[in-house]
Amino acid sequence: MSSSTAKIVKLDLKEPFVLKKGEVLEEIEMAYHSFGNLNQNKDNVILVCHALTMDSQCCNIEDKESDDGWWSFMIGPNRPIDTNNFHIICVNVLGGCKGSTGPLSINPKNNEPFGRNFPQVTINDMVRTQNLLLEQLGIHHLHAVIGGSLGGMQALEWSVAFPDKLDKCIAIATGGRLSTQGLAFDIVGRQCILNDSDWQEENKQNDNQFTGLALARMIGHITYISKKMMDEKFGRKLQKGWKESGFNTAFAIESFLKYQSEKFIKRFDTNSYLFLTKAMDSYDLASDYDSLAESLTRVKCKFLIISMSSDWLFPPEDSIDLAWTLSKQDKEATYANITTNLGHDAFLIDDKEVAPMKNIVEAFLG
Amino acid sequence: MSSSTAKIVKLDLKEPFVLKKGEVLEEIEMAYHSFGNLNQNKDNVILVCHALTMDSQCCNIEDKESDDGWWSFMIGPNRPIDTNNFHIICVNVLGGCKGSTGPLSINPKNNEPFGRNFPQVTINDMVRTQNLLLEQLGIHHLHAVIGGSLGGMQALEWSVAFPDKLDKCIAIATGGRLSTQGLAFDIVGRQCILNDSDWQEENKQNDNQFTGLALARMIGHITYISKKMMDEKFGRKLQKGWKESGFNTAFAIESFLKYQSEKFIKRFDTNSYLFLTKAMDSYDLASDYDSLAESLTRVKCKFLIISMSSDWLFPPEDSIDLAWTLSKQDKEATYANITTNLGHDAFLIDDKEVAPMKNIVEAFLG
Repeated sequence: MSSSTAKIVKLDLKEPFVLKKGEVLEEIEMAYHSFGNLNQNKDNVILVCHALTMDSQCCNIEDKESDDGWWSFMIGPNRPIDTNNFHIICVNVLGGCKGSTGPLSINPKNNEPFGRNFPQVTINDMVRTQNLLLEQLGIHHLHAVIGGSLGGMQALEWSVAFPDKLDKCIAIATGGRLSTQGLAFDIVGRQCILNDSDWQEENKQNDNQFTGLALARMIGHITYISKKMMDEKFGRKLQKGWKESGFNTAFAIESFLKYQSEKFIKRFDTNSYLFLTKAMDSYDLASDYDSLAESLTRVKCKFLIISMSSDWLFPPEDSIDLAWTLSKQDKEATYANITTNLGHDAFLIDDKEVAPMKNIVEAFLG
Repeated sequence: MSSSTAKIVKLDLKEPFVLKKGEVLEEIEMAYHSFGNLNQNKDNVILVCHALTMDSQCCNIEDKESDDGWWSFMIGPNRPIDTNNFHIICVNVLGGCKGSTGPLSINPKNNEPFGRNFPQVTINDMVRTQNLLLEQLGIHHLHAVIGGSLGGMQALEWSVAFPDKLDKCIAIATGGRLSTQGLAFDIVGRQCILNDSDWQEENKQNDNQFTGLALARMIGHITYISKKMMDEKFGRKLQKGWKESGFNTAFAIESFLKYQSEKFIKRFDTNSYLFLTKAMDSYDLASDYDSLAESLTRVKCKFLIISMSSDWLFPPEDSIDLAWTLSKQDKEATYANITTNLGHDAFLIDDKEVAPMKNIVEAFLG
């Protein structure tokens, strides 16, 4: 498996970038991947927005045998997001830890990494910096913006922040805001990190793989898969080779959660996790307006809203609410519910249950 | 509000008590409360089994103005579990921290508190020690055993462990086993404690109020209330007087979870929480037999199975499965689903939505 390196572009900021919450960043670098050729009119661009802990490498078409890239089954030659027709751009979000400016970056004021002193970013900031990057690349209009979960929030924010800049918006397994229950899980996850004594003792980012982050990830992971899938896949099975020891059980689900979270903390920055979950929690599509309906009056693009039937983090009702509100504003909105037991993360899985999503996205992109 | 002191009885053990998992306890004390008069035939006894973090004080009829006791709206004179007719006994579970032998008790072998070295107890151990206490009190038969959640598991275990000893079993908001998702939440909760550096440094129980326990409780609390109730009660409201600070939000749900968990760690022992959640997780009504059906062939009492419609920790399907399996074994089982948005903990709340539970329990007890 080979992975390609992200391109890094420093934004030509004429003045410091003012974040939504008021703080400024004097320098911003954006890491991105692109696939497929940009046509002469520069009107075949699709911006792919990644979810909470992903990166800009959404696929890897240079290596045809490779499944590298978190959405490789969706993007590539003759795939639903077809790189033979479209120029795909995927940007690591502002505040992330995969090449774009974030807590791991050096603060030009003191030449030390920002760490936890990075300013709080919002979905709006992510989208505005993506736009600055695109402008710098000479791309002034998007055929579509597509994303799932936190990426879906970015896609939605594009539609209200830059209504004239995109033709189509595809928002998958997402909503205009997180439910209270979703907030609650993120809140406890952050408290797990804040109460990690190793994290407390650090002033900056570092190489430690924090247990607090592992705990937060375990909580998150439970919300990414459905209750039924957990029952079917793990049930009360015991993990081979594991023994019950003290307060640790031998349940396969315990082994799974520990394995996944240990893998996760090797690839993700703790402070980035704090900032990005907080950005997700604070996002409210309606917040700058009086209501969701009011917010959506300004949009101009066509929408495709897709939910996963067993998603309990962003349940289908959230998507229905969004599609319904758009329709009542006489906006063009298509809604599809994918019947699957795979839960929230279904949109990331190349499973036959999820196959209808491929066809719908392909048809909608035209 | 006055609360009455639990009676403490030392069990007359002729030999050390052998726990289900093989370890032994040489001495066992049981803390219990009783209400209402025991009749001459000693056949009017109802055993009330408490949930994970409760105690033996299920009501407080000495003080008529008091709502003290965790089920005071259910138990008392002219209440659904009527102390004018029945003699109510409620026992703190083995492994608990409210008077019965548990991690806070002194280990006779070294005269130090057991702490984390207490042996792992099971639901079966809880039930067998309750039986020993009752025998010692001269009570050889129960009119009914009733409980919710972990208390419901005890009620079910009574029906299979001592099929000849009870006439009626009432199991509320419970199941024959916890779902995989339920296991997962308990697993992460325990990991929060195991990774608390303060807890790690202690060899025994102590007075510290562990942050790890607060985190575990927050996770638990999310599962005790329904998604809809969270949305309606808290939504995305901000807490008055709270300011967003660093990675802490001002969401009312954050304030609520922190307040509840801080209150909790003042009243509960961390090691007890570890042992009791593990007892809950390892419980499987079918485990000593080939299947749930096989397990239930031996029961003789009548059953009342009650679920809360919005309970997602022990969803109605678990209760339906139980009632259906009983019916197929030609056992007498009544099933009722209480329509409420209050979630798992609804059975502990004196709300008009839950009022039907009162009538059904009262009628079933006769």
